[in-house]
This record gives sequence, structure tokens and C-alpha cells, in this order.
Amino acid sequence: MAHDKSAKPRRPRAVTPRGFRDSFGAEVRARTEMLARITEVYHRYGFDPLETSAVETVEALGKFLPDVDRPNDGVFAWADADEGWLALRYDLTAPLARVYAQHRNDLPSPYRRYQVGPVWRNEKPGPGRFRQFTQCDADIVGSATVAADAEICAMLADALEAAGIARGDYVVRINNRKVLNGVLETIYDPRLGRGGPANSPRETIEAVFAEQDTQAVLSLDQRPDILRTIDKFDRIGEEGVRQILTTGRCDESGAFFPGLNLYPWSVDAVLKFLTARGDTKVETLANLREAVGDSLVGKEGVEELAQIAELLDAQGYGADRVVIDPSVVRGLGYYTGPVYEAELTFEILDDKGQRRQFGSVAGGGRYDDLVKRFTGQAVPATGVSIGVDRLLAALAARAGGPAAEAGPVVVTVMDRTRMAGYQAMAAELRNAGVRAEVFLGGGAMGRQLKYADQRHSPVAVIEGEDERARGVVQLKDLALGARLAAEIATHDAWKAQPAQVEAQRADLVAQVRAMLARAAG
Amino acid sequence: MAHDKSAKPRRPRAVTPRGFRDSFGAEVRARTEMLARITEVYHRYGFDPLETSAVETVEALGKFLPDVDRPNDGVFAWADADEGWLALRYDLTAPLARVYAQHRNDLPSPYRRYQVGPVWRNEKPGPGRFRQFTQCDADIVGSATVAADAEICAMLADALEAAGIARGDYVVRINNRKVLNGVLETIYDPRLGRGGPANSPRETIEAVFAEQDTQAVLSLDQRPDILRTIDKFDRIGEEGVRQILTTGRCDESGAFFPGLNLYPWSVDAVLKFLTARGDTKVETLANLREAVGDSLVGKEGVEELAQIAELLDAQGYGADRVVIDPSVVRGLGYYTGPVYEAELTFEILDDKGQRRQFGSVAGGGRYDDLVKRFTGQAVPATGVSIGVDRLLAALAARAGGPAAEAGPVVVTVMDRTRMAGYQAMAAELRNAGVRAEVFLGGGAMGRQLKYADQRHSPVAVIEGEDERARGVVQLKDLALGARLAAEIATHDAWKAQPAQVEAQRADLVAQVRAMLARAAG
Repeated sequence: MAHDKSAKPRRPRAVTPRGFRDSFGAEVRARTEMLARITEVYHRYGFDPLETSAVETVEALGKFLPDVDRPNDGVFAWADADEGWLALRYDLTAPLARVYAQHRNDLPSPYRRYQVGPVWRNEKPGPGRFRQFTQCDADIVGSATVAADAEICAMLADALEAAGIARGDYVVRINNRKVLNGVLETIYDPRLGRGGPANSPRETIEAVFAEQDTQAVLSLDQRPDILRTIDKFDRIGEEGVRQILTTGRCDESGAFFPGLNLYPWSVDAVLKFLTARGDTKVETLANLREAVGDSLVGKEGVEELAQIAELLDAQGYGADRVVIDPSVVRGLGYYTGPVYEAELTFEILDDKGQRRQFGSVAGGGRYDDLVKRFTGQAVPATGVSIGVDRLLAALAARAGGPAAEAGPVVVTVMDRTRMAGYQAMAAELRNAGVRAEVFLGGGAMGRQLKYADQRHSPVAVIEGEDERARGVVQLKDLALGARLAAEIATHDAWKAQPAQVEAQRADLVAQVRAMLARAAG
Repeated sequence: MAHDKSAKPRRPRAVTPRGFRDSFGAEVRARTEMLARITEVYHRYGFDPLETSAVETVEALGKFLPDVDRPNDGVFAWADADEGWLALRYDLTAPLARVYAQHRNDLPSPYRRYQVGPVWRNEKPGPGRFRQFTQCDADIVGSATVAADAEICAMLADALEAAGIARGDYVVRINNRKVLNGVLETIYDPRLGRGGPANSPRETIEAVFAEQDTQAVLSLDQRPDILRTIDKFDRIGEEGVRQILTTGRCDESGAFFPGLNLYPWSVDAVLKFLTARGDTKVETLANLREAVGDSLVGKEGVEELAQIAELLDAQGYGADRVVIDPSVVRGLGYYTGPVYEAELTFEILDDKGQRRQFGSVAGGGRYDDLVKRFTGQAVPATGVSIGVDRLLAALAARAGGPAAEAGPVVVTVMDRTRMAGYQAMAAELRNAGVRAEVFLGGGAMGRQLKYADQRHSPVAVIEGEDERARGVVQLKDLALGARLAAEIATHDAWKAQPAQVEAQRADLVAQVRAMLARAAG
């Protein structure tokens, strides 16, 4: 009885590493089809596909991972014997910058490209937080005009509609980092490196300095904190932003965000900016012009927004599809001009059963410095990234569940020595464009029909000795059978198997097609 | 003059790591379209798509990398803080085994699945040898019948034709490892672990032992060497195989392969097997029956091949598409039953300008032990992997060059303040299904037309101040222009710009469509 269990070789565990997952059947089909529709739009806009290698040198990837405070943490990397440190790409923008720098003499300029593919983030996995996910990007490299930004926004709207999001269920929100920089300029005096209204008389500023304590000193280091606070505006509202910008805020969970101790006039400037959105683009632009005051960069930003709005209006993209929205921030220290975001506006039930807007599914903007890392020359670029899994989840939520797909017609096997005949039936069906397969497992008819059910098969084909002798086949309408079973589960009629018909063997294809048409209609 | 160059921050190099590469425009489109056609065939056969994560635990991947003697060398791996050693998948079969073991209670049985995606091999890169490439696999897990193998072979033929390989330009060659094992059995006596005709009288074998020297002793360790030699049959022929199996062989490059010192009757048995291919399947099967003698496993293998041939014949897959070919080996110590390979039979010019057959583009077979690693239970499985890049290269070779694709219609920009009008033109064209873009770079008309040429644009649209005043646009037929330039490069007629027409602005879409139809026709 003494077993030496340790002598048994340990079996490997059949699991994905945490944070990774597999996708099956209907989900893969739905994603593939959605991506084909989106990339068809990109292609029609003149964008060319690009596929870069998943592996890059760490040197080429750089430290530009957006949305992460300590970027190098977020990368899967390893030392290669010959090539130094290699890493999996964390987005599709860093590889684009590398490709453009590497091939700039051969690529058209401007270079419009789209790319679809997985990216990897070495983060702690959590619920709904994966370490591999799919992005779908489109960028224009080498164009400084805001017409490029406008084009991306129009294309994003078209792509969402092609994917199946109805007009009215989404909005593309546009902002400009230059406007925000202009607002921040009005509340800092870069000559002094300290806060205060830029256009205050010198003596006012000095009076402020005299009375302030060290806690109240504003510095450029506070900009990321202010951006993060602005990014929360949608959720916490005007009063919440005011609290964080001044003395601090307690959220519903009881967590305390310490205040940034901005001067009252700085807080006012930020809020004037955040609440600038009016009923029309004209109104919003007027409010923004006021918010940026005399800041040159701020004025430039507002004029760029005005041009984008004009270009989109000329192509018929009105306020039902594209709006100017000052609360859009998008990433830290990455974008240099226009930024944009696509938000789905319909409501879903969240994990806690609360109704809430579905939210953002895509975002992007202008980033003019990525190629410069390689070449020393700034190359203007703008582009968008669609969160493929989120958009797919949105389509499923809108449809009331994940995509379902009819399975193949299943040809059952009553007599294993007649396999060639069953294979010929499946081949006939397939040649007529009908998805079909022969049951190739073991087991009696009950097991085979259970398999067909599990496959969501619409029709099962049955041919026993008797049928073969008579030149007929039995066709079981499984789709109808399932409906009948649901409707009349307890009824004797179910036992009469009304969903099964006999057909001439020669009429197999025609009869199956008729049943499929009935199931679809 | 004293520059401190070391103070300059070093710029990252814009390169892919060696062995990795990028794919652009037309190549990506051609690959995407080819894969869509192939997977549509798989789907019609009842196969469901699967997408596994690129990253697996090293434990789950195991040591099953085919075609590599020391498998662990071939994997990109790194230590994860939480999950132990992780690695990039090296094929799509190992992840399938993991998925099946992990989800076997929820998956249908048999489980037909296809998967397309990149795989990674950590090998020394070389010419035409990449460390990331795309595979396109289809497998049936959980079916022991050779009807599954026959189905994969039929589907492979259909997939190649769907991809664009004409019937007659390919052949699917089938063999069975059991037949080969049977032949090897006839030349080994497993009771003695030594060579000799298995059915010789005992005294003959012992007489042989008495006279042989140690060099001539055969052992099971020689099986991989014999398999490798058989795999070379296509290239080195009967005499080359005989040389390696006996005293050794010098190839054209002067390299010497040491001989395996097999007994003459062992050599004869191997060659009888290798040359068993007859003009018909019936003839081949008869020759194979003779080659395996009384070996039980050998007989079983031949009968399986006979069944596969019968099933394929019943579906109309004749010798023009599928043949039994004993020289097919496929991998070492991996397959356990039928093996198959798709070979393209048309000739191409190789790197040295020599005509040669294009060769293998897909292969697979039955592997019954992969899932057992995880669960302890053997699960029968069979499947095929298409080398996507090789098949794409074959299509390009057959077409006389890589796929070309017309670029977008380019709307040029004469007056940057009228950008909204140009964008509206592009939007009109796109809404009519015409691929179109506005030139968004800098530069005069010459630069813009050069860009349109580089984009392989069929038509350029030009609207200056004069045209706008008159309500017209100039349409430059760049496709026609390119043809004319090639034909009458030195002729004055070229200067008359016959390829440019004036159209009413309102007729833009209709006129462009007419020009595109002319270019296509």
C-alpha cells in the first residue's frame, strides 16, 4: 500500500498565465468581421495596412508607454543572446514611429497607415484587465495640418458606424492640448516658475509671493496632477474638481484625495475652461477664447479647433457625431495638439447592476515628437486607437448578448463501414456553400444528436440501413426542434418529432437549404 | 572646436531585431485576403476559430517543438514575477493541446478548430529564416478514425484552390508512420535490440551476430538517422539513400555524410518501401503490403492508407490532387499515424537561377500523445499547418511578382484655405465606394503629383482658383499617363497631356468612376 507519489512525474497544468485568455468560435468570428469592416473604412480613406513584428528592441520602444506612471514596468522584456534586450510591443504607435524612422526614404509622405494586432502590458492582472489585448490603429505621419486631425475624427465616426454602432449611440469628442496649455499658462508665470495670473501686474504677483506659504507654491510639477483632476471631471463634476484643486476631496469609498492648494483665480481659470462646452461649436469656441485669455499657444489651440470644426461641418459631420469638449484630456505628456475620444452614449448595466453610459472605446490625438527620438527631426503625426475588445463588448451589450452563430449541418454516422457515403453527403453540402461536417467521434445516435445540439447545428442528417435501401435520408430540423421543445416541452406532440422529415437522397442539398432558409426566416 | 560628443544623448536605432520584419500595404492585403479565403474553407468544413494567447507558461508549452533537435533552445522565454517562466508560443499545436486539456468538459468532442496567428522561434536568423512567422492550422481533436485524416487532406486541397493555387499545380502527398514503423520492424529484432530480418530463422540471426563487427550493430538509436535519410529521398534519389544507409555519401558541396552501415537486406527493405509508389493507389498499396511483410503495425498502417484513399476517392479527390507517397516523413518523433504534405509542383527559379519545384507549403499528421501530457489520457488528434508566408510567396511567384494594388484617388490641394472643399470631394468619392484621400503634405503641384505616383494612384483631382470659378475640376488619369509615358516617352505628344480631362464639379464622382473602369478594363 506504500505508494511513492513523489516518483510520479508531475503533469503540467493546462492553464493560461494569469491575465491572458483564449477566444473561441463565435467571439473570434465577430471580432474578425468587426475588424474587417473597420479596416475597410480605413482603406477607403487611403490608409495602407502595416504589420510590424511583435518583438522590438527595448531601445526602439523607448519609454513612451502612455497612461502609466513608470513606463518601463509595463513591458515584457528579456535579454537576447545577440540582440540585447528585446520586448513585446506595448502599443502600435511606438512601432509606427520606429518603422517611419527606418523606412522614411521609401514611404510616401504623408504616410497613412492602419494596423491591427495584439499588444502586451506587463501589469498586475485584475478583473477585466488583461496583459494581452488587440488594438486597431490608424495614423497619418508627416502632416502638420489640422485637416489630418479632422480626417481622423470623421473616419473614426465612419468606422464606428461600419462596426455596427448606430448614429446617435456614439459621439466623437475633440479637444486641443494647446488650449489646456494656454489655460495653464494663464495661471503660471514661467518667468518665475510659480503660480499666479500671468497677466497680473508684477506687484500683485510679488504680493502674493510674500503672503504665501510653501505648501501653496505652484510649480510645473503640478501639471500632471491638474491634468489627472481634469480627466475626472466627467465623473466628479465641477464641485469635485474644485475640491481637489483646493483643499482635497473624499470620494464615496471614503478615499481622500489631497488638495492641490491652487490659488482661487487658478481654480476659476481651470473651471472656466472645463465648463466651456456650449450648445453649439460656435458658443464653445467663444467660451474657450475667453478661457485662454492672452496666451498665444492657447489662442492657437482654439483656432485649430475652429478649423477642425469647419472642416467636419463641410463634410456633414455635425453635432450629432462630433463635438468640441474641453474635458477630454487623453494621456499624460504624450499628445501635443488636438486630442479626440469616441464615447458610446447608450446605457448599460454595470457589474453592480447600476445603469451607466458605456463610455470610451477609442481615443487618440496629435503627437509630434515620437519620430524625433530616432532621427532628431520632429515629424508631425496624428492618429487614433480603437479598443477592440471594448468595442466588441459594446456591440454584444447593444445586441443583448454575445454574438451567436449557427453551427454546421451534422451528418450522423449510423454505420461506420459506410463512412465514404456520409463524407460524400457533407462534401455535396459544402460544395453548395452549406457549412457541414460528418460526426467523427464514437457513440450511438443519442450521443451524436447531443453533439449536434452542442454545436448549435441547425440540421442533422441521418441515414441508416433502411434509409439507404430506400434511397432516402432523415433530416432533423434541430433549430425548429429546439423552438418546439421550448414551447411545448410537456406536450405529447413533442414525441411525434414534427421537426423530422424524410427526403430523397438525391434531394439532400435542396431539402437542407429549404430547412436553413426556414430557420433563418 | 572641442566638442564633447559623449555629452550628446545617443539616439536609439530604428531597426527591427534581426530575424524580425515588417510587412507593408499590398503584401498585408494579399495575406489577409488569402487567409480569409482559406479560413472560409475551414469554416465551411465545420471548424471553429480559436485564438489563444501568444504567451504560455513554459510548463504548458513543453518540449514538443518539432524539427528541432534540442527543443528548449527554440523558445523565447522570460521569468515572470508571479507566474514563473513564460514563453512565446512556437507553434499553434502546443496551445491547442493546452486549450483542449483545460476546456475539455465544455468543448464539443470531436473538436474541430482552426487558428491563424504568429508563432516565434528563438533560432539564429538567416536568409529567409525568420524568428516570427504566421501559421494557419486546422485540427480535429478527439477523433480516432482515419476519416478525420482523410477530411483534413480533402480540406487542404480545397484550401489551396481557394487561395488561388490551380488544380494540377499542387499535390497532397499522404503516408503513414505506422507503415514506416512496420518496415523498420522488419529490419530490427526488438527481442535482441539488433538488426537482422525479423523473420529469419534464429540460427541465421545468430550467425550474423557471430560475424559482424561492432560498427555494423544496428540499434533503435539509428531510427532518427534512417528517418532523416528517408526524408532526403526526393533530393538525393535511390542511389543517394543507398550510399548513406551503407558506406556514406559525398554531396555536390563536398560535404561527407558518414554511412549508417546497415545490412544489405535492411537497405533493400528501406528502398523497397521508398520506391513503393506506383502509378495508381492500388499499385502503391500492393507494393507497401509487400514492404511491411508480416509486421502487424505495418499492415495496420497500409490498411489505414487504403481507407483514406477510399474515402477521398468517394468524394472525388483523385490522383490529380491526392497521392500516397512513401517518401513523406514529416518531423521526428511527433506523428503517430497518417502524415501528409502539400507540395506545389510548378517550377520557379531559385536564388541561383536554377529551375526547381516550389516544394512544400503545408504539412501535418496524426499526433495522439499531446493532450496526454496534461491529463494522463491519450486523446487522438490530427491536423495540418499551412506555411502562410511560403504560400504567399508561391502565389506571387505564380503571378510573376508580388501583388500590386491600385492606390487611392488623390485630391490635390492648390489653395490651402479651401481645404474644406477638397475634403468634401474626397468624402463624396468615398461615400460612392471609391478609395480617396486629400493630399495633406506640403509642396507645390509637382510634389503632389509625384506623391500620387508613389501611391500608385489611378486618378488625381485638381481644382485651382480658375477651376473653382468655372465650377469644374481637372482629372488626371495617372494610370493612362503612366502607360503613355512608357510608350511614347520621347514623343511630343506626351507634353500635350492627353491623360487629363476637365469635368464639371457636379460630375466628379461619375467621371472618376468612368476613368477607374477604363483603367481596370
